Amino acid sequence: MTELLSNYLGGRWQAGTGSGAVLRDPVLGTELVRVDATGLDLRAGFAFAREQGGRALRALTYRQRGELLANVVKVLQSHRDAYYEISTANSGTTKADTGIDVDGAIYTVGSYARLAASLPDGHFLPDGDTQSLAKDGSFATRHLQVPVQGLALFINAFNFPSWGLWEKAAPALLSGVPVVVKPATATAWLTQRMVKDVVDAGVLPAGALSVICGGSAGLLDALEPLDVLSFTGSADTAAILRAHPAVTRHSVRVNIEADSINSAVLMPDAAPGTPAFDLFVKELAREMTQKAGQKCTAIRRAFVAAAHYEAAAQAVGARLARTTVGNPRNEAVRMGSLVSRAQLASVREGLQALRAAADVLHDGSRAALVDADPATSCCVAPTLLGLATPDAVLANHVVHEVEVFGPVATLLPYASVDQAVTQVARGQGSLVASLYGDDAAQLAGAALRLAPWHGRVHVVSPACAATQTGHGNVMPQSLHGGPGRAGGGAELGGVRALDFYHRRVAIQGAPEVLSAL
Amino acid sequence: MTELLSNYLGGRWQAGTGSGAVLRDPVLGTELVRVDATGLDLRAGFAFAREQGGRALRALTYRQRGELLANVVKVLQSHRDAYYEISTANSGTTKADTGIDVDGAIYTVGSYARLAASLPDGHFLPDGDTQSLAKDGSFATRHLQVPVQGLALFINAFNFPSWGLWEKAAPALLSGVPVVVKPATATAWLTQRMVKDVVDAGVLPAGALSVICGGSAGLLDALEPLDVLSFTGSADTAAILRAHPAVTRHSVRVNIEADSINSAVLMPDAAPGTPAFDLFVKELAREMTQKAGQKCTAIRRAFVAAAHYEAAAQAVGARLARTTVGNPRNEAVRMGSLVSRAQLASVREGLQALRAAADVLHDGSRAALVDADPATSCCVAPTLLGLATPDAVLANHVVHEVEVFGPVATLLPYASVDQAVTQVARGQGSLVASLYGDDAAQLAGAALRLAPWHGRVHVVSPACAATQTGHGNVMPQSLHGGPGRAGGGAELGGVRALDFYHRRVAIQGAPEVLSAL
Repeated sequence: MTELLSNYLGGRWQAGTGSGAVLRDPVLGTELVRVDATGLDLRAGFAFAREQGGRALRALTYRQRGELLANVVKVLQSHRDAYYEISTANSGTTKADTGIDVDGAIYTVGSYARLAASLPDGHFLPDGDTQSLAKDGSFATRHLQVPVQGLALFINAFNFPSWGLWEKAAPALLSGVPVVVKPATATAWLTQRMVKDVVDAGVLPAGALSVICGGSAGLLDALEPLDVLSFTGSADTAAILRAHPAVTRHSVRVNIEADSINSAVLMPDAAPGTPAFDLFVKELAREMTQKAGQKCTAIRRAFVAAAHYEAAAQAVGARLARTTVGNPRNEAVRMGSLVSRAQLASVREGLQALRAAADVLHDGSRAALVDADPATSCCVAPTLLGLATPDAVLANHVVHEVEVFGPVATLLPYASVDQAVTQVARGQGSLVASLYGDDAAQLAGAALRLAPWHGRVHVVSPACAATQTGHGNVMPQSLHGGPGRAGGGAELGGVRALDFYHRRVAIQGAPEVLSAL
Repeated sequence: MTELLSNYLGGRWQAGTGSGAVLRDPVLGTELVRVDATGLDLRAGFAFAREQGGRALRALTYRQRGELLANVVKVLQSHRDAYYEISTANSGTTKADTGIDVDGAIYTVGSYARLAASLPDGHFLPDGDTQSLAKDGSFATRHLQVPVQGLALFINAFNFPSWGLWEKAAPALLSGVPVVVKPATATAWLTQRMVKDVVDAGVLPAGALSVICGGSAGLLDALEPLDVLSFTGSADTAAILRAHPAVTRHSVRVNIEADSINSAVLMPDAAPGTPAFDLFVKELAREMTQKAGQKCTAIRRAFVAAAHYEAAAQAVGARLARTTVGNPRNEAVRMGSLVSRAQLASVREGLQALRAAADVLHDGSRAALVDADPATSCCVAPTLLGLATPDAVLANHVVHEVEVFGPVATLLPYASVDQAVTQVARGQGSLVASLYGDDAAQLAGAALRLAPWHGRVHVVSPACAATQTGHGNVMPQSLHGGPGRAGGGAELGGVRALDFYHRRVAIQGAPEVLSAL
């Protein structure tokens, strides 16, 4: 039998008492390791995290906690090769896609380590100026942000076992809040190994970082009112978590990042042959194929002026046709695998729904795989769908509502920018939209109109062609999250990420009391 | 039959088609008016608010919307006498208690009207500086706060029919977000009249302000993903709202202000005879009796050093004994009525639970009422309970868990400040705690330790005796809300209140695009 990975909880390694769930190589189909969380004393473990981990973290200043993060970066860097191996084996990723997860995580932690230098060498964050409430100045109010005195539970998604942990853990730890992470089972190995390396290196206080691999049963029952919960995953699971008494009755603060039918919009003047058109085509093909389309931020709907629909379809299709798909261990392969048979089945099901509602512009279903057996591997080639007319886009529901979490997107023609914005909004709130054009004023105007429906608007123009960071790439400096269907959450955004792990409080009193805080 | 109050929805007055619920005078027991919301087309009305009201409000700048608020202030001031009459009739309040609700509302709206002058004469709020994401500066990120493109639904509590509307509506309207208010039925008259006066005066765009009086059936079903919901009331109702699909599936943003077992802590050196001791006694008695204890922020648990327990009990009891209770139309009456028979029953039930678990230090059950019939009125005199020893406080659960929403508090001795802080935290998160003492450093230290469990910490020392604004009085300049049991919400706090009605977005692009926003 394969190795059973241990959980780290209550300051010690604890094996589950069940037989465990098997993690597989999604390309080869082989068994890798097992995970199990049966029989853990979650209440005791959470209490340890709050009391030991929370106390030790809060005893440090923001700058001291920044040094902890810098040490975490060193630990992760020293084990980087192992992470690449685990990612390829368990997630079926190419080296480039592994980099987004692993190096993206290290960059994000480093980013927060550096950000700490701009924070107080103290134990709370000032929030605005003291404001007098008395004409003679003898009574005033002052706001502070104080770290929440609970733990942060992360229930994470399968697509970013590394970045998904660290983009949340960095601001939590910097805020002084201990972390318990429950990675998605299918790809839990990398998360577990990273926690193990950091724990073994002894760079964090006991109880500051815990990992539970396996089922999520009982996790929310063990939460207390001052804990916070951050979830990334499906809207269905999000709804279940939100309806749990920990949230409904005890007001546990929740951050959700769920489904998102993200859009890209090519501005009408960006005709075929213009640099903006080429940037759009390149970005769409990249977003469809990067991590085999398994990014919450990937482009799912691509809007173009009706006049440019055919040209865009051909140009994107040509790029997709050149994308070699298969075993990421083969140097010729540009796109790896989906993470599991379950995801493969889900993508096939979603694709079937889209194919029934739209035209197939580039068909991935018959592409040959490189070094991968279609019968056992979870590889699937990219498919571009489309609707031929703006009226068809207005009449369609499926393309605005079905998220296929794989290398799939739909090309949608519009009659006017107004109409495009309205159709984008039919996604009911998304993580990100991107715009492509070469007129700053027009781009700014469209960005402001898309803004209320998104957590991020990414504007690509020839001026930033070489430096733009990518539609789907989440930079720690920018907010990540979106309203409505996207879950209503907010992560990252530099220092803004610390809000979730702090609680704002007004202190009212005489000036000599407020200045003694 | 009494008058049936109309609802204002979809830009017109609409009567419910049912017979309506009767609103009564809680002192005299007489029928006043009826309210009913049966048969309203909520979806159409909400769509009107979003499309007409939202569009018109967002077309204005923050400063222009500030002028709208200044006009609302004028309208409300011109009808102030009518509001005092309605409040006394429907809420059984003394003039002083009416003032907290009515004048408190006018002051709060005026406060946000003035605050508008510090906001941009534009359509979004900048959020931090533009930050470069490229070494050559050709790509950058900029954060904005943009108004949510939905409506704000307020489901409000019976105790503040005026302030409860306006403390929420002022920041919502200033943000450009249309308001629909559903007041608690028992005291809905004042809310309805205020909306009527503002609507009749024509000072707001059509659809900017609507009122629905009666049941709340169907209200949440009519919400859409970009709407926001603010609720003040019981934890039970809060849990029901939070579990609604509008919230769990569509991520409607929710602000909850629920039960709260607020605390006051007399510092150990504030012995009987010191000014701080007297301030504590005066504030506790005031908090118990103001609005007959029907304030979410009222002191429910009062902590004193064990050595001062007897003295505090006597001093508070002496003040309570002098509080005349009864018909607020009688000038001799200092404390009016509870708002309804249902509240009277609820207070009696809670009081029974507390009396079974604690000693009665001052018994209100046998006090004579002034000009009020105990058989028909909802008047109840104040009762102070207590536990004799710190050990009894540690062993007791009831006093930390049962909120009696009336003129009732419990005096609790502590052995050390450490212990007092730990016991305060057993309230599981509260709106406000107050501290009384004369040592700035000690008070600041205790305030920081109480901070994570509260939305506001109110520090009273002799230096601000004449100007401090009161433990339970909510100033628009200070945050109002609290973690955990208190609901996890955040209102007011000056410009901070606008956060709830905005959505943060990162715009990434070339500098010329970002500067064109």
